[in-house]
Amino acid sequence: METYEILRDLAIVLLSAKVFAVVAKHFRIPQVVGQILAGLLIGPCVLGVVEQTSFLSQMAEIGVILLMFETGLGTNLKELIKTGPKATLIACCGVAVPLLGGTLLYMAFYGSQAVGTEGFYKAIFIGCILTATSVGITVEALRELGYIKGYVGQTILSAAIIDDVIGIIVLTFVMGCKDPSVNPGSVILKTVVFFVLAVVLGVVCYKIFDKIDKRYPHTRRIPIASVGFCFLLSYVAEKYFGIADITGAYVAGIILCNISDADYVARKTNISSYMFFGPIFFACIGIKTDLSTMNMGLLLFSIAFVVVALLTKIIGCGLISKVCGFKWSECMKIGVGMMTRGEVALIISSKGLEAGLMSEQYFAAVILLIIISSISTPLILKALYTKFPEKQVV
Amino acid sequence: METYEILRDLAIVLLSAKVFAVVAKHFRIPQVVGQILAGLLIGPCVLGVVEQTSFLSQMAEIGVILLMFETGLGTNLKELIKTGPKATLIACCGVAVPLLGGTLLYMAFYGSQAVGTEGFYKAIFIGCILTATSVGITVEALRELGYIKGYVGQTILSAAIIDDVIGIIVLTFVMGCKDPSVNPGSVILKTVVFFVLAVVLGVVCYKIFDKIDKRYPHTRRIPIASVGFCFLLSYVAEKYFGIADITGAYVAGIILCNISDADYVARKTNISSYMFFGPIFFACIGIKTDLSTMNMGLLLFSIAFVVVALLTKIIGCGLISKVCGFKWSECMKIGVGMMTRGEVALIISSKGLEAGLMSEQYFAAVILLIIISSISTPLILKALYTKFPEKQVV
Repeated sequence: METYEILRDLAIVLLSAKVFAVVAKHFRIPQVVGQILAGLLIGPCVLGVVEQTSFLSQMAEIGVILLMFETGLGTNLKELIKTGPKATLIACCGVAVPLLGGTLLYMAFYGSQAVGTEGFYKAIFIGCILTATSVGITVEALRELGYIKGYVGQTILSAAIIDDVIGIIVLTFVMGCKDPSVNPGSVILKTVVFFVLAVVLGVVCYKIFDKIDKRYPHTRRIPIASVGFCFLLSYVAEKYFGIADITGAYVAGIILCNISDADYVARKTNISSYMFFGPIFFACIGIKTDLSTMNMGLLLFSIAFVVVALLTKIIGCGLISKVCGFKWSECMKIGVGMMTRGEVALIISSKGLEAGLMSEQYFAAVILLIIISSISTPLILKALYTKFPEKQVV
Repeated sequence: METYEILRDLAIVLLSAKVFAVVAKHFRIPQVVGQILAGLLIGPCVLGVVEQTSFLSQMAEIGVILLMFETGLGTNLKELIKTGPKATLIACCGVAVPLLGGTLLYMAFYGSQAVGTEGFYKAIFIGCILTATSVGITVEALRELGYIKGYVGQTILSAAIIDDVIGIIVLTFVMGCKDPSVNPGSVILKTVVFFVLAVVLGVVCYKIFDKIDKRYPHTRRIPIASVGFCFLLSYVAEKYFGIADITGAYVAGIILCNISDADYVARKTNISSYMFFGPIFFACIGIKTDLSTMNMGLLLFSIAFVVVALLTKIIGCGLISKVCGFKWSECMKIGVGMMTRGEVALIISSKGLEAGLMSEQYFAAVILLIIISSISTPLILKALYTKFPEKQVV
């Protein structure tokens, strides 16, 4: 392939992704859905003008790393610690119930799997995809309604962040265990060592970055060094600890989320994300999606997958909220607020595809889930808040 | 290669390029020089921790496309047309004399070459590298001195922009002719057709973009669509007209330089440039540079190359300025102001390397030229303006 051939792919991907994102926005559908549909259209599924090349995969990989880095950077550590036990409890149930639901769903469709076999990890992996709430869509919906700073809103926000962390730890663990030659003990050890190292290294790096940042605020070196650090940690995580590179990127973001220029770094990174790497990542999901194997069985599975995904979050988060002392109406709001899925579900799916834990055909189910949850959550939340109004905190 | 391996290369390239750029800035050397030296250090020449991979080449290609696009976007068409004939005349001589000088220099070292042979085009190509003044360094130097808006300053600026255009047309022509099986007539025809099409298409696209821009100012769709358009035009130029993709990118920039959000597009593009693609492009120059073939002959050539490069610009631009009616002191300022070389020289060299018109070893000469011209121009200009002061226009 001549080098200039990549320009053609880039032009088609960027332009079509943007057009579809704009159309999606017009219909109040999340823009990522538009970008995925653009990928479906230009990919082998429909028009076949762009194929998955190694260049596009690599750009998409950078895209997902940057997305996770930004998510990490956006973490408000103090808020997270303050909202404390309740949010953690809600998050734990919000991870456990969908994880169990997804695993059982897979087994219901494809037979029960013995513990430790490949099928077993595949089943758990379907559960993994269901764990992470998409903070972005939840926040946007609550902000639009004007309830983002209320007690329920803050609880949802914190729980959504914590469930990302737990979800990623579970993913890390499942990915580490998938290889039958690997000793689960060593996976646990490696995971623990990585997170301990991350905390120690995190404190040191945070101090170094904070010092440079205070001395040269708002200079280009801050975002460039941060992104370099993110790439390095992602690489080290995957290469030496067998931990997904996206976990490394997320941890890098959390390490730097308290430097005074964290916002500045996120903004600069975000521009490259939305101009290049992000649209490529989401369009590549569409390009990779294989609809040729879609059949009645898979369609039924997809529908069941969506139902299980939505119900397990409502039940898991809602019931535990009641235990935490919320009113029933508030429990419903929390459960519904937690049911949106988005980028992270796709990110986890991509990782699973790469690791052989999932086949392309399930992408269709994940995309369906994102579309339905993203459209229904804001609508149901609005209905709930209209029926059970709360005091608005601005 | 596992996908995550690219993260390691990226981290090393970005971090080392930034460190060296900061050090270079500290010593008042242009930052690009620092980035190239970083590439030399981490590349096979010295440490060998990063090698030229196809991924890095592709990222570098995007880097150079974006740089040329930004240069085009920064064009002030009205100013360019107003300063008119004088600047054009100076630019023409500023291209012709170095082009001739470079060609003769190559022939002096490696024997005269029959017209139309490969050696002939290689000789002309060395001349091509010498044609383009680096607007950036000139502007920075004049701005620091406070003379950027003066008559001499404006003339230098316009001439530098026009010589970029002429230089790129010459390059396009030489690249088109290099293939012996190609009929020079068809190259001329294709080049003419491309530029005519560019004007026609340019007017149409400009109107479309301007309309969208006025309706949705400062929205993400503007920079994304612009970059997509740039990639598309670059691809079409190279694929269907045999014109270097960088020419296409430059033309795309000029087409869009008058939309009201041109600045906004340039700013957004620039962030991705300096965070990712730019440093990779410059570091890759260093990584590709092959110093193992450096010998006495090549060293002598490099020194002669630098001397010819600086003198031909001073003589060509200086003498014609006198013809245009400038005072001798002003002619000296114009000649010296035009002698800086930078990104465009490297870009042309990269293209030549790809097309087989130049070998890696000459990168060393080009880099030497950039370093020496970038350091000496501001110093000499300062001395000239101190000795022959002008009225400052703010």
